[in-house]
Formats: sequence, C-alpha cells, structure tokens
Amino acid sequence: MNRLRRYLPILTWGREYSPRTLASDLVAAAIVSIMLIPQSLAYALLVGLPPQVGLYASMAPLLLYAIFGTSRALAVGPVAVVSLMTGAAAGQVAAQGTPEYLGAAITIAMVSGIMLIAMGVLRLGFLANFLSHPVISGFITAAAVQISAGQVGPLLGIRSKGENLLDILQSMVPNLFQINPYTAAIGLASLLFLLWARRGLKAFLLRFGLGERLADILAKVGPAMTIVATTAAVWGLGLDGRGVGILGVVPQGLPKLALPPFDTGLWTTILVPALLICIVGYVESISVALTLAAKRRQRVDPDQELIALGISDVGAAVSGGFPVAGALSRSVVNFDAGAQTPAAGAFTAVGVALATLFLTPLLFFLPKAVLGAIIISAVLSLVDFGALKRTWAYSRADFAAMAATILLTWVEGVEAGLVLGVALSIFLHLYATSRPHVAVVGQIPGTAHFRNVARHAVVTDPEILSFRVDESLYFPNARFIEELFNDAVAANPAIRHIILECPAVNTIDASALESLEAINRRLKDGGITFHLSEVKGPVMDRLKRSHFLGELTGKVHLSQFDAVSSIKPELARRTRDARREDGPA
Amino acid sequence: MNRLRRYLPILTWGREYSPRTLASDLVAAAIVSIMLIPQSLAYALLVGLPPQVGLYASMAPLLLYAIFGTSRALAVGPVAVVSLMTGAAAGQVAAQGTPEYLGAAITIAMVSGIMLIAMGVLRLGFLANFLSHPVISGFITAAAVQISAGQVGPLLGIRSKGENLLDILQSMVPNLFQINPYTAAIGLASLLFLLWARRGLKAFLLRFGLGERLADILAKVGPAMTIVATTAAVWGLGLDGRGVGILGVVPQGLPKLALPPFDTGLWTTILVPALLICIVGYVESISVALTLAAKRRQRVDPDQELIALGISDVGAAVSGGFPVAGALSRSVVNFDAGAQTPAAGAFTAVGVALATLFLTPLLFFLPKAVLGAIIISAVLSLVDFGALKRTWAYSRADFAAMAATILLTWVEGVEAGLVLGVALSIFLHLYATSRPHVAVVGQIPGTAHFRNVARHAVVTDPEILSFRVDESLYFPNARFIEELFNDAVAANPAIRHIILECPAVNTIDASALESLEAINRRLKDGGITFHLSEVKGPVMDRLKRSHFLGELTGKVHLSQFDAVSSIKPELARRTRDARREDGPA
Repeated sequence: MNRLRRYLPILTWGREYSPRTLASDLVAAAIVSIMLIPQSLAYALLVGLPPQVGLYASMAPLLLYAIFGTSRALAVGPVAVVSLMTGAAAGQVAAQGTPEYLGAAITIAMVSGIMLIAMGVLRLGFLANFLSHPVISGFITAAAVQISAGQVGPLLGIRSKGENLLDILQSMVPNLFQINPYTAAIGLASLLFLLWARRGLKAFLLRFGLGERLADILAKVGPAMTIVATTAAVWGLGLDGRGVGILGVVPQGLPKLALPPFDTGLWTTILVPALLICIVGYVESISVALTLAAKRRQRVDPDQELIALGISDVGAAVSGGFPVAGALSRSVVNFDAGAQTPAAGAFTAVGVALATLFLTPLLFFLPKAVLGAIIISAVLSLVDFGALKRTWAYSRADFAAMAATILLTWVEGVEAGLVLGVALSIFLHLYATSRPHVAVVGQIPGTAHFRNVARHAVVTDPEILSFRVDESLYFPNARFIEELFNDAVAANPAIRHIILECPAVNTIDASALESLEAINRRLKDGGITFHLSEVKGPVMDRLKRSHFLGELTGKVHLSQFDAVSSIKPELARRTRDARREDGPA
Repeated sequence: MNRLRRYLPILTWGREYSPRTLASDLVAAAIVSIMLIPQSLAYALLVGLPPQVGLYASMAPLLLYAIFGTSRALAVGPVAVVSLMTGAAAGQVAAQGTPEYLGAAITIAMVSGIMLIAMGVLRLGFLANFLSHPVISGFITAAAVQISAGQVGPLLGIRSKGENLLDILQSMVPNLFQINPYTAAIGLASLLFLLWARRGLKAFLLRFGLGERLADILAKVGPAMTIVATTAAVWGLGLDGRGVGILGVVPQGLPKLALPPFDTGLWTTILVPALLICIVGYVESISVALTLAAKRRQRVDPDQELIALGISDVGAAVSGGFPVAGALSRSVVNFDAGAQTPAAGAFTAVGVALATLFLTPLLFFLPKAVLGAIIISAVLSLVDFGALKRTWAYSRADFAAMAATILLTWVEGVEAGLVLGVALSIFLHLYATSRPHVAVVGQIPGTAHFRNVARHAVVTDPEILSFRVDESLYFPNARFIEELFNDAVAANPAIRHIILECPAVNTIDASALESLEAINRRLKDGGITFHLSEVKGPVMDRLKRSHFLGELTGKVHLSQFDAVSSIKPELARRTRDARREDGPA
C-alpha cells in the first residue's frame, strides 16, 4: 500500500480532500485555464503545428499529472523552450505542415515520456544533473531570444524561418519591405499592451477602485483580453481582407486517442533530441516544483516527478499533443490563486476541454500576430543576460560554459548548444580539478597547527617536506601529483621524509592509488620515506582494501603534528616546551 | 638562454659530457641496438608494413629525442601497443600491402607528432589525464592479448586477420588444419626459448661460469640469438622451400627524407585515432620516464616530453616510419646497462643505421614465425589480469571502467575500447560525486566537536539541523543538495535553523551557488534561517564575489561550535560549564 501510495500520490491527498479545498482548486483552475488557452494555441504555432494540437497537449497531460504528480501547484502543459526544441527536432525529420511533421512531434512526446518514466523507475534522475546551472540558464536565455526573434515575422506579417537565430534574422532581411501595416499595428499594439499589463495593469486597475484580488486576476488574463479585443476588431473591420493572417477553422471536439506509429528509423533519429527535450523539461519543472513546495513546507519526490512528467508526455502523445512540462508562469499563478492540490490541474484540463468543445468557432478571426505577441511577452521574462555578468564575477569556467551554450545555440541550433554546453561543463570541471591547489605546509611555532608556508610564518625542517593537496585524488590529477613529488625531490636534495596531508581528500580512486604506489616506490628508490596524515575515515577504509598500506615506507598518522613528531621527536618536545612557557592553551 | 635550454635539454647535459659518460652511453647503446633491431622488424610486421619501415622508425626519432628529450634513459622507437593501434587506424583507410596503407601509417605519425608538439607548447598535457589508470591498464592488457592472438597465425604458418580479438580468433578456426609443421616448429621453439630466456637464461649462463655482467647482457640479446640461429637453420636446411615464410629482400640503405602528402580527407579520418595513439604513447612513455628518473633523483619535464615525443613522431614520419613512443623494456635495459644521457639513444640510432646499411642481406632467410615469437614474448609481460582483481577489491567503479575497456577492445576494437573506457570513467566519477556522503551532525557532550549522529553519541537541538556534506558542491550534486534540504524541512516541522558544515567542500561552482541561493530563499519562505560553517578560505573568497552572502538569512561561522553557540548561547554556556567541571582541556 505504501508502495502504491508512492507511485499514486493522489491516494494520499485525495483522502483529505474537502469542499474548502475544492473551492480553492476551482478558482485557481479557472484563472489558469484562461491563461492556458491562448498560450496553448500560441505554443502550437511556435512548434509549427495546427492550433488545436496545443489544446490537445493541455488536457490529458494535466489530468494524468493530477494523478501521478507530487507537486501540489505545478501547472503542466505546453511551455515555450520545450516547444522550440520540439519544432527543431521535428524539422530534422519532415517539413512543417506535413502529416509527418505532426507525427514526429507526437512521437517525440511519446519517446520523451518513456525516457522520463524509465529514468524515474531506474532512479536515473541524476542524469539531469549533467545540465549544469550555467548551461541551462544560458540555454533558456538563448532560446527565449531565438523564440522572440522567430515571432517578429508573424508579428509584422512577414515571412521568417530558421533553426537558429542567425538563420531567422537572415531570412527576415529580404522581406522587411513587405511588412503588412494592419498586421504590424495589431501585433505591436498587442505586444505593448501585454508587456505593460505584466507590470502596470494591476496598479492601474487598483486606481479605478477595483478590489486587490479582482485587479490581480484581471491583470493575469491580459492575453485573453487581447485575444477578445483583437479578434472582434478583425471581424468588425474586416481586416482579414487586408492581409491580416487569421487562425481560421480550429476543429471542434476532443482529441481521439491513438498510439503514435512505431517507426524504427524515426525513433532512432529523434532519440537524442527527445532525451534533451525531456531533461530540459524535467529540470525546469522540478525547479519550479521545489520552489513552490518549499513555501508551504511540502515535499516533492524528484523520482516520482520523473514518472509523473513522463506519463504526462505519453498522455500528450496518445491524445495527439506535443511534449509538455511544468510551466513557470502558470505554476506561480496557480499557486498564488490558491491551488491546494493537483486536482486544480485536472480542473484546468476540464476548462480547456470546454473551450475546445464550445469556443473554437469564436477564434476564427483571431489574428496570428496576437499569438506572436503573447509568445514574445511570455518568453521575454526568461531572458537573463545579467546571469552572464554574475557568473563572470563568480567563476570564469562557468561563464565560459554559459557563453558557449548561448553562442552555439544561436549559431548552430538548440541541440548543438546544449550538447556542447554539457560537454564543456564536464571538461572544465575535470580541468579545474586536474591542477588542484597544493600548499607546502610548516608548523606554526609553539602550536600543533600546520599552515601554508607561503601565507604564514611557519617552521619547516630541511629533511621533511609536507604537502597539503586541497582536492580529492583521482584520475584527472593523479599524474599531477606524481609530477609534484618528482619535481620536489629533484629540487630538494636534503629531503628524507615527505608527508602528504589529506584533510581535503574526499576520495582516492584507483588511478590515484596507482600514483601513490608509484610515488612510494620512487621515493623508496631515492631513499625517502613517504607518510600520510589526516586521512579521512572512508578514504582509509578503502585504502585498507589495497596493498598500498603494506608497501608504504612510512606510516599513516592521525594528524600532521603526530607525523612530524614521530619523525623528529625533538620537534614535539620543543613544541610542548613552548606551550608550557605560554601557560595552558 | 634559459628558455632555449628548456626547449633544448641537450644544451644542459651536453656541457657536462665527458669521456666516461661517453663510454657508459656507448655500452648501453650497443645492447639496446641488438634488442631493437629484431623488435623493429617485428613491430613493422605487427603494423602490417614492410620490415624496413620498422628500421626507419628506429633512427630519426631516436636522434631527435636525444636533442629534445628530458629523460636520460627513455628508449624511444616502435612499441607494441602503439603499433597495434596504428595498424587498426591505417586499416580504416586502405588495405594492408597497398602504398595508401603505408602512407596512412606515415601520416598518422605526422599528425600524432604535431598534436603532441601542440599539446606541449599549449601546456595541454593534462589531456592525457583523461586516460584513467584502470582504462590504460585494461587497454594495455587487452591490446597485449589481442597482439598475441594476432601473432599465433604467423607463428603456426596459417592465415589470420581481424581488427579485434573476436575477428582474429574466428578467422583462424577454418585454417587450423593448414598448419605448416616446419613453420610451427620454428615458431614454437623460438617462443619457448624466448620465454625461458626472459627468466632462466641468466641463471643458466651464470652456472656455466660466465661473469654476472656478461650473463646479463647475453640474456638480453636472446631475440637476436634466436634470429641468427633460425635464419641459419632455414638457409642451411632449405626450409623456405618447405613453406616456411621468410622475410625476403629488405632494402639496404638509409630512408629518404620526405614530407608525407597532405590530404584533407585522410587527415580528417585519422584525427581521432592519431589523438588516441599519441596520448597512449605519451602516457606509457612518461610513466617509464618518471620511474627511471626517480631512481637517480633526476627531473623529467612532462611538457617538454610532449614536445620531444612529438618531434620524434614527426621525425619518424619524415623518414618514412610509423608512430613511436618510449618502450618500457628497452628503457629499463638502457638504464640498467648504464645509459647516462639521451646520447645513448643517438648511438642506438647509429647502431640501427649500420644494421640497415650492412646487415639486411643477411636477414633474407629470417623466418617470419620468429618475429611472431619475438612479439608474443615481448607483449605477454604486459598482460596483467591481476589488476582486474586488485581493482575490484579497491573500487567497483574503477573495475567497471577497466572491464568495459577490455571487453570493448576485444569485441569492437582498440579505438572503441579506449573511447568508451574514458567516457565511462568520467561518467562514473560524476555519478559518484552526484550523491555525496552526507552526515547529520551533533555535538559531542562537553566538547566543541560535532560528529555524525549515526556514529556517535551526540546532542542535537530540535530547532537546529546541522549537515556535513563530504564533497565539493558542484553541478553533479547541486540538485541533490536542494532535495536534501527540501526533504529535511518537510520531515522536521520544528526546525528553525539549518547549518551546512563545509570542511570537505573544496569548491562551490555556479550551479551549486544557485542551489544554495534557492535553498536560502526557500528556507526563508518557510521561516528557517540558513547558516554555513567552516567554509575554506578559497571557497569563501569566491563566495564574497557573489550576492549570496548578502542574501544569506544566517551567517558564515568560523566553526560549527561557533554557529551553534551564536544561535543558542545557552548551549555554549552549558559546554563551558561542562568543561570547567572536567578541569582545563
């Protein structure tokens, strides 16, 4: 039963469900629905699919997440960055507008979902860790800029296309003189209104005497209001006859359930893109979920989230939708509007279903430029170039990974940007640890403390050399350690003992063990004794399973002071005398 | 001048060169030459090239290493593992026996050499660190077994071929009944003699009253003796008429110098194999060089070694040879025989040149089976399956990398084995650090020490939770840390303060910083104060460059005891009281 509860969180929160919870969830669901309907149409166009596909991706996944999800506020559905990636991946398989393109998008949802479920069941969630923060943050900024650039065309009524920022910008240049003034007017006006609505609408409404809560809700439904107003304008003024692109017929009715076709060639082609899509979607979702859960001290189970999001993606695929994820903006609205349980998501799905059944005829005259404006106003908040500056100040290596991700995404596309970013993060980490900080240490007179000779006034003995390496010893730095010892021995002919102080060594892998063995043999050949000090418990436990401790010419000492004292007892005596003169420590 | 000396070590040791050094170097060179001549012929056949190419690879590279190398005993030239890899790489470009195959081998030497020089000049030697010890050790074992299997065919006079162990074994099965008895007799007798010579010949000669030194030298020249004896036998008994494969005409004279042709397609194809070859060659060489240098407390400069080995490879290419490296067995013999300076290598090259000029006609009747026996007896000492057992005992992750390298080399070939091994080492390292050891710590009563609550009888306060994470905080474990805090907060409603104890944290990267910021915000939302303690100097220096310390709800405390005392002053008082009762500490 506990096992069942782990996989079906609805069994836990469902038992405590009360009329009060229901009321809260219903209010939240109503607000989120009104946000989601225009966004789902817009993101379908962003992927390059018919608008109803966006609505389909906003029903089954939400219902399924309500059953399997552990976050009480996460609003699942189409999101901008995942939509961009899905379009890029489907574009490698077929041309936009073809049934194969739609089939590819649906199959990507299926494969992403299966991968997430597998990662959840096999506890492989750590794979998401490989997307370091600078890479994902740089990627989201790059993607948001690219998405915005891609919507400039629809906004102005000119053609644009491309898989990366460079291509998109180039494709627009020759068409700049074909701007449709009516489209551009509707698009730019909508965009300005939406951007203003995000910041100033609530204050504006409050000034007109509206209640705090009502003003808040009205400010959130800005996109819906824009749609109503512009659709009415196009219909009333007959702007569709003046070249303003309109949405046209959106098929009424719920999606039909069907398994996507299994095509080995297609599955192989989309394997890597689907993996990237599901990981990016998961990383975004879990970060939102953890943040919201913390505010109410609730628990989110990352492994179960993998399963829940995976099932949501499979649900999207089976009901003819594209890949989904937890949306930052809608989740925050859901939370603020008072959503208490995942049931709010299910009610949101009902809201979208009602719209799909009854409202689609009213959307016939919806100008596409408004959807472009909705996308731009939504993604611009994701752009964070300030992160580049903050990261530069903190860490050059992380900055390099971030900048490379952004540039490569813009020049080569989303997959190349992500893959290179991940590879670069790993490489730079290994590089940084391959040359760890090493201090030659000496004794602070009259104490048992040993510090860096370069920073402190310390005492050293010409026959004893003590190193402290501030890093785990493992393959990237194993040879560095060998060279360190070789150089030290060649440079100091008087040395008879070398002590390696290991308080910062969290692990010693087989490569480093081999290096320590080689160092021990070489020092022995040169007549030098090799000691270790302050080796941590778990590291020592493992060393005991090797032959190293048996071969070691010196000993493993509990502390650096013990090591020096056992080699030169007179040093220990001198320290005790000095302490006695100073009185008890 | 110092700069020039760094790049031309000959300027340093050349000034101290004396007649005594010359005598030592000449003796060592004579012994190594007699070892090298048969080995160079054998390794040429191992690559799949005419025998003289092995001689060419044993002249210019040795002369050049004598000028640029920093190891005084490293014997450069053809080596088994690099020869195997060269053959595998050239086989991807052309068929054995064609001029294109020879051209590919020469070009690989050229590209490997240029890569090594570039790595030396740009200080990129750390790239070699990516070959972790389990991977290189597993790879050498796998390669040695595969080389031996590949020589069973020539040894028995049957056909065999293949790029991996599986293929080689399969290719031999149908030919097993075509064994040539004369070839097999010569081959197996030579092999048995050579294997015995390695172990028992010296003792045998000593028993016959030979001097220690003479016996030692004679035991080392076993291969040369075998060649003389079997060549004489084939010639005298006319065995070449009975199907015994012989070496035939080896062109007399020194190689002509020429630049290998530049073919973009060819260079692109061999880029990855050449990189692997040069790194494997470098890793083997530097390990031998460091070991021998330590015995006489000499210095080896790893960056200059990259340049020296690179120039040697370019020299091999320009004089029609294949890639070279520092040979373990010949280097040890060179060292034991008394080589004092790299000049011994130059004299060895002169020895090989003299043989090429005057001895090649005498090699006409040399049975190829003997070369197979020489190869097998040389590489069998590289096989170390015991390493698998030792590594298993020490670390399962390192064992997995080693076993995967061996298996993949045998099943897929040398390049696949190495690349997968490296990728797996990196992955397993990241995986291991993605779930670091975390201890909840409490105070040992009456002391300022804090230890793991699971291991020690300690005191904790219900409002304070203290974690110690035994790993650097960076992207593979950043999300793990977030989840750790979220779970802890959800499970302990009484908590008001959380302290993260950081004595084992050697670095905090931008991902972990972002996680700490998120943790701080979330704890703040939940009404919990976040503290750090025992943050290391370099980590603190970097944190000061971020906004984190300004946002942190708690403080950074010098010690865990300070942290707890500042939160609950009564705890500090209590500890002081307890100490007073016990008397001065």
